[in-house]
Amino acid sequence: MAGSELADRKCVPCHGGTPTVAEDEAKGLLAELDAWTIEDGKLARTFKFKDFVSAVDFVNRITPIAEEEGHHPDLEVGWGRVKVLLITHAIKGLSDNDFILAAKIDRLARG
Amino acid sequence: MAGSELADRKCVPCHGGTPTVAEDEAKGLLAELDAWTIEDGKLARTFKFKDFVSAVDFVNRITPIAEEEGHHPDLEVGWGRVKVLLITHAIKGLSDNDFILAAKIDRLARG
Repeated sequence: MAGSELADRKCVPCHGGTPTVAEDEAKGLLAELDAWTIEDGKLARTFKFKDFVSAVDFVNRITPIAEEEGHHPDLEVGWGRVKVLLITHAIKGLSDNDFILAAKIDRLARG
Repeated sequence: MAGSELADRKCVPCHGGTPTVAEDEAKGLLAELDAWTIEDGKLARTFKFKDFVSAVDFVNRITPIAEEEGHHPDLEVGWGRVKVLLITHAIKGLSDNDFILAAKIDRLARG
């Protein structure tokens, strides 16, 4: 992964043979992200907002990025918050794609 | 609740003194809804869609209803699905408002 910003990379199509990110590598990649943790094997970050509409607006700004990458997060939306959860369902684990999408969402959140 | 369609009623502002719907009454109200269950004390229904964008579109159609009612659901959004969870946080339980919003979301889903 060295030599390129995570947020500038593109997700590659996932399939059953997509490599899982090893635990050590995951720690290194987490350090490149803003405030993500790993929860139940998923990459997770909660974003706070001033109200419900602003939270849904964030969902709408994530959507075209997810579509462009062909990689889609799980989102828990409530009043003033969006929790983003990333996992590569095809391998039931974390792949580079999850970290790439997380970095792009970080960039979006930084505005 | 007799004599008026749930979906035509308006949510009333919630506060700590908002009455909790009794278990028996909840069963009766559930029967007026389309396919909701009670999960961990929340009113829950999962809606299926053909892709991620259609799921987010449903979130966008729920949002103005939630805003108008001043009562907001928790939403779990993933590829092709939106799970709607309703609870009245002020009383940590179900109030009439949850059933009213559920009925309005049913009406939305029926198109």
